[in-house]
Amino acid sequence: MYIYSSFDGGNISLKEISRPHEVSLHIQKDSNSHFFQWFNFRINAQKGESYTIRLCNAGESSYPKGWENYRARYSYDGENWLQADTAYDGKELIIQHQLRHSTVQFAYFAPYSLTRHDALIRWAQQRGARHNCLGYTVQGRSMDLLTIGRGSKKLWCIARQHPGETMAEWWMEGFIHKLLDPSDPISHRIRERATIYLVPNMNPDGSFLGNLRTNAAGKNLNRVWADPKEETEPEVYWVRKKMHETGLHFCLDIHGDEGLPYNFLAPPFGISSLTSEQEDIFYLYERFLLRHSPDFQNQYGYPRTPKGKANMGVCSNYISDAFGAMAITLEQPFKDNAILPMPDRGWSPNRAMQFGKANLQACFDLIQHL
Amino acid sequence: MYIYSSFDGGNISLKEISRPHEVSLHIQKDSNSHFFQWFNFRINAQKGESYTIRLCNAGESSYPKGWENYRARYSYDGENWLQADTAYDGKELIIQHQLRHSTVQFAYFAPYSLTRHDALIRWAQQRGARHNCLGYTVQGRSMDLLTIGRGSKKLWCIARQHPGETMAEWWMEGFIHKLLDPSDPISHRIRERATIYLVPNMNPDGSFLGNLRTNAAGKNLNRVWADPKEETEPEVYWVRKKMHETGLHFCLDIHGDEGLPYNFLAPPFGISSLTSEQEDIFYLYERFLLRHSPDFQNQYGYPRTPKGKANMGVCSNYISDAFGAMAITLEQPFKDNAILPMPDRGWSPNRAMQFGKANLQACFDLIQHL
Amino acid sequence: MYIYSSFDGGNISLKEISRPHEVSLHIQKDSNSHFFQWFNFRINAQKGESYTIRLCNAGESSYPKGWENYRARYSYDGENWLQADTAYDGKELIIQHQLRHSTVQFAYFAPYSLTRHDALIRWAQQRGARHNCLGYTVQGRSMDLLTIGRGSKKLWCIARQHPGETMAEWWMEGFIHKLLDPSDPISHRIRERATIYLVPNMNPDGSFLGNLRTNAAGKNLNRVWADPKEETEPEVYWVRKKMHETGLHFCLDIHGDEGLPYNFLAPPFGISSLTSEQEDIFYLYERFLLRHSPDFQNQYGYPRTPKGKANMGVCSNYISDAFGAMAITLEQPFKDNAILPMPDRGWSPNRAMQFGKANLQACFDLIQHL
Amino acid sequence: MYIYSSFDGGNISLKEISRPHEVSLHIQKDSNSHFFQWFNFRINAQKGESYTIRLCNAGESSYPKGWENYRARYSYDGENWLQADTAYDGKELIIQHQLRHSTVQFAYFAPYSLTRHDALIRWAQQRGARHNCLGYTVQGRSMDLLTIGRGSKKLWCIARQHPGETMAEWWMEGFIHKLLDPSDPISHRIRERATIYLVPNMNPDGSFLGNLRTNAAGKNLNRVWADPKEETEPEVYWVRKKMHETGLHFCLDIHGDEGLPYNFLAPPFGISSLTSEQEDIFYLYERFLLRHSPDFQNQYGYPRTPKGKANMGVCSNYISDAFGAMAITLEQPFKDNAILPMPDRGWSPNRAMQFGKANLQACFDLIQHL
Repeated sequence: MYIYSSFDGGNISLKEISRPHEVSLHIQKDSNSHFFQWFNFRINAQKGESYTIRLCNAGESSYPKGWENYRARYSYDGENWLQADTAYDGKELIIQHQLRHSTVQFAYFAPYSLTRHDALIRWAQQRGARHNCLGYTVQGRSMDLLTIGRGSKKLWCIARQHPGETMAEWWMEGFIHKLLDPSDPISHRIRERATIYLVPNMNPDGSFLGNLRTNAAGKNLNRVWADPKEETEPEVYWVRKKMHETGLHFCLDIHGDEGLPYNFLAPPFGISSLTSEQEDIFYLYERFLLRHSPDFQNQYGYPRTPKGKANMGVCSNYISDAFGAMAITLEQPFKDNAILPMPDRGWSPNRAMQFGKANLQACFDLIQHL
Repeated sequence: MYIYSSFDGGNISLKEISRPHEVSLHIQKDSNSHFFQWFNFRINAQKGESYTIRLCNAGESSYPKGWENYRARYSYDGENWLQADTAYDGKELIIQHQLRHSTVQFAYFAPYSLTRHDALIRWAQQRGARHNCLGYTVQGRSMDLLTIGRGSKKLWCIARQHPGETMAEWWMEGFIHKLLDPSDPISHRIRERATIYLVPNMNPDGSFLGNLRTNAAGKNLNRVWADPKEETEPEVYWVRKKMHETGLHFCLDIHGDEGLPYNFLAPPFGISSLTSEQEDIFYLYERFLLRHSPDFQNQYGYPRTPKGKANMGVCSNYISDAFGAMAITLEQPFKDNAILPMPDRGWSPNRAMQFGKANLQACFDLIQHL
Repeated sequence: MYIYSSFDGGNISLKEISRPHEVSLHIQKDSNSHFFQWFNFRINAQKGESYTIRLCNAGESSYPKGWENYRARYSYDGENWLQADTAYDGKELIIQHQLRHSTVQFAYFAPYSLTRHDALIRWAQQRGARHNCLGYTVQGRSMDLLTIGRGSKKLWCIARQHPGETMAEWWMEGFIHKLLDPSDPISHRIRERATIYLVPNMNPDGSFLGNLRTNAAGKNLNRVWADPKEETEPEVYWVRKKMHETGLHFCLDIHGDEGLPYNFLAPPFGISSLTSEQEDIFYLYERFLLRHSPDFQNQYGYPRTPKGKANMGVCSNYISDAFGAMAITLEQPFKDNAILPMPDRGWSPNRAMQFGKANLQACFDLIQHL
Repeated sequence: MYIYSSFDGGNISLKEISRPHEVSLHIQKDSNSHFFQWFNFRINAQKGESYTIRLCNAGESSYPKGWENYRARYSYDGENWLQADTAYDGKELIIQHQLRHSTVQFAYFAPYSLTRHDALIRWAQQRGARHNCLGYTVQGRSMDLLTIGRGSKKLWCIARQHPGETMAEWWMEGFIHKLLDPSDPISHRIRERATIYLVPNMNPDGSFLGNLRTNAAGKNLNRVWADPKEETEPEVYWVRKKMHETGLHFCLDIHGDEGLPYNFLAPPFGISSLTSEQEDIFYLYERFLLRHSPDFQNQYGYPRTPKGKANMGVCSNYISDAFGAMAITLEQPFKDNAILPMPDRGWSPNRAMQFGKANLQACFDLIQHL
């Protein structure tokens, strides 16, 4: 049995092959950080045989609640990701799997590789999006901005500050595909009325390194918006700088949540400067999104932060405050969506893309209110 | 120069090649009927040269208003259909075109061949739709019914009673693709709550024969619903019979309109039995569709028929009356959509498919009210 | 149970549905002719159930030997054609099949529709082939010629004089795809050294009408080359005329054979004017083809016609005589290839395409000898 | 202007942006090594503008002769790679390019990423190839072996010992695609008669790191076959071990040559143990390959090493000696193929794939002689 993860977005280390059909693995920590939860590895073994895979340090991971009612994803072709037989005993995450081919890949969620990110950027620029490199990451990767549309309303949409939340970039792919569809009347209208700035991947280094939450310097990007340093958080530094150049009327920051089996919005209601106009925009967006996606709900989510208690390093708080606009954190599940379960795949790339498209419809409804 | 139309859905006859780069053509009448307007033919001539194509009997066609501000469609690959340089002088429709390859196809609207219809049925049945042949057409073709979903609400959707209104089947393709998308939450919910009966092509014979409005027997199917004959209008006979077997809570009948450059709904408000509940459903659907598609509007359309003056041979009138449900005629343009023009293609297969998908969203909103 | 064949290339008539799971069918005769063997129809019945399909007049068909060790082809998607459970009792051809979906198509061999033919012509002209309509068929279809390459050697390749021999056009598709591959060095060289004239379908009317051997006028095109009439055999008339305009150094005429389970070549050795140089070219081509395709053999085939006894109405005889060049009839099996059986599919579209490509390699080897 | 290469297979460093439209770059050395020549980077700048890109240390690279008559490859979509306007002044390689989109990629040759390698392995195992991980590379990547066929003759085929010679893996992709084509009669026969062992990428670490010639430890793998160390050259260690387990009758080792604009074979004629039977096999293979590919020639190549003077660390020498079989080094050009130039693309992925397929045909011809 061979285990490997030395690829784009991979994360695992071999502890031991205890028995012929059983292997113990460790999830590795994020670069320069104590966070860990993202795993992504391949196994080469005997076709037809059943294997037990133990992630031994699951219980010590950043969000152990995330393992409850969770099922690992596996794929044989890198395109279709299914839910594996998965158990959690409070310490280990235990995957049982019978190999249909000699090599299979397991991951916390369907990976979104940097190669696919590059392909998305290329595809978008050939379809008419403008592409800018805003600056370099810690490891010298490109901070890619796509700009679409020519209208007066400035919408920003960023994803994957936390690189292990790959559903955020699948969401982006759906959003961008719809926005560039030449025959889609909604996208046609949005492109007239708004200019949409998109950062499909806020954390290319962390994505590549197989991190859950941090960049290469070990920084949690969604805590540094108040004062990002060019040396250690250039990803936020360059994007924030560009936002101030362009202006901003509305912003979505796309994430995944390890624990809650729901799609939900987290508003920046803890900021001191919050106005009722900002609140209105939030509730409008929530209402429009309910209208367009049965995968969305507004019953379950994070507890609201009392006014004045917001962490201003968080993107949506900083932006809402700095621009007097509404910036919302959008969360998707790693687990299945409890209000609309689809057991074979759980929450998946295709569903995240669909949800991205529904959000574009909600943005269209919202624009006239901005 | 060679002109031919002996193919699935073709329609033209050569009058004369008057000069080396000019040809006069006649649109042929529907089988056993006086209707004509649909054309669909190929020209083989000299690559790089410019040609003038005259449809000499355009002014005598069924809907001469249809030629005003109309542009013929052409294609080199059978997939992409663009708007040609087209003029109408009150008598002839005159197309000017410089050949980019030696063979080009022209048509009144992007054709939807029976071959593509067959492929759609096969694709749908492999994705989980049930397929039934309801009976045979006049010429022995299959009346294909697709059934999707398991819910209690019975939705019927039929298209292309008038075979030259090909946008109706493009609309259907979009509707069906979305409805069978396994990761679409709207479709998932509809399949739970409703059973959707779909006849993507009510008039296979007419489609194949290159007719505008009639079946092989020369009958306008949308005038015979009150009492369809098995011999001359078996297409309606078999579908109507099945409707009475399944029951029906809501129905859409998809068409194209030669004259008006708009998408619009035509309600069955002329029937004597009309109830305010039926009216409410119509207005709800209209509102929901406005919500989901900027290609739709409700300002322009047909004048309303006074109550009691309805032609009961028309599908939507017959059904609304017979089932006490709401049946709506939906019209799409042959021209471009005047409220959202896209000059290179005009109203097109892709836009019709998008509009079909938006209608599915409106159906989803409507189901809880049925 | 519903049976239908009213589509491009369809052929069947219903005799009776004798029992709920058993149907008796008749193959229909070619237009204005006594030939029959080609069948092509769809059945709509109960998914999961087993059915017996009897072709009752199989024993009286044109080539009853063709049914021995033959297996009918079926498809659910129109792309993949598999071999069905088939028996022949000397009178009836009996197909047993359990439906995996509610609609399945059966055919004598994987059909090659006119729609696909049109798509092939369009694809080729967009890849750089020149397309000419040489004239009209009896029913007004286009006689399509593709011309590829700019070299001095004139190669002609025609297929499907007998429209039911669809493998001939599958062969053509392979040949043409390779010939237009911009990165294929063999094709690059051939395009420099030769001009290749291709008629992928000599008999569009017969193809569309579901004929085995004749055109719409009931003529066997491969018997009229000595003196084709413009009225009744325009297909041959126009092609032959063009051959005399262009000149011809080598010709392949592609067919299928109902009886023999082999690929083989039939040389024009019965013509009086045969020279040893012509003979040499034949044997060279045979040797080159053996080199490039394990699907080819030269042990089994037709008995040789004695010199002077050739039917000069046959294409290869006429051409070899008229041009002093070598014209060869190439035959492929309807059955599986006995020297390299692949039981699930038998001889198939993909294998015919591969064989077309191997023939192009043999043509390349041959060119320097012409 | 932004320059970046922090991706799979990337290699460049920025020296300076001397003027707004001019940039000076350095090719970086292979890991732990002095070799350098491979470059692969992206530029983000102003669409429509022209730029000058200088590779300043080109003259000091490993094979400066390689830059003569060489043209850099560029791509906007990552699929199509074209030849750029390129000059070499003996010191710098100077590329001039007008941007058609804001981001373009340049490389020494069309890259073959590890992501694509992984996709190739997955595709092959789903088509029936057996996949084994033979061991780990220096950096813990998988040494992937594909095994195809069940016959008695043992063919080995390895590629990309030198990771910058990406045409070697494109060649492999063509070879493998043909070998797994279920309808290809040649592949069918080979799979009966031989077992083919394929290592599509001998140097995954070097490929990923953007090296020209070495693995992560700085070792030139094609010099260590006599005694590979598990620690520093595990790639060769594990493959060689497997070869001794399976046995070997014939071997191809696929490379690219920086200088010569030709495809050619390099035989192991310098080994002391060379037999005339081995020589015969070499000449047979050369003859068969000439037969199947006009892209191949045997006039230009490396000078022959005198018998007894072979470097036994070279793969083909070691194997020919150890197994008493014929192992051949196959070289493809980085430049265009001088005997069959195609100026817009030069030697390219598609041509390398075609050449791989032609080699499979030559292998088929050879098998009966092994």
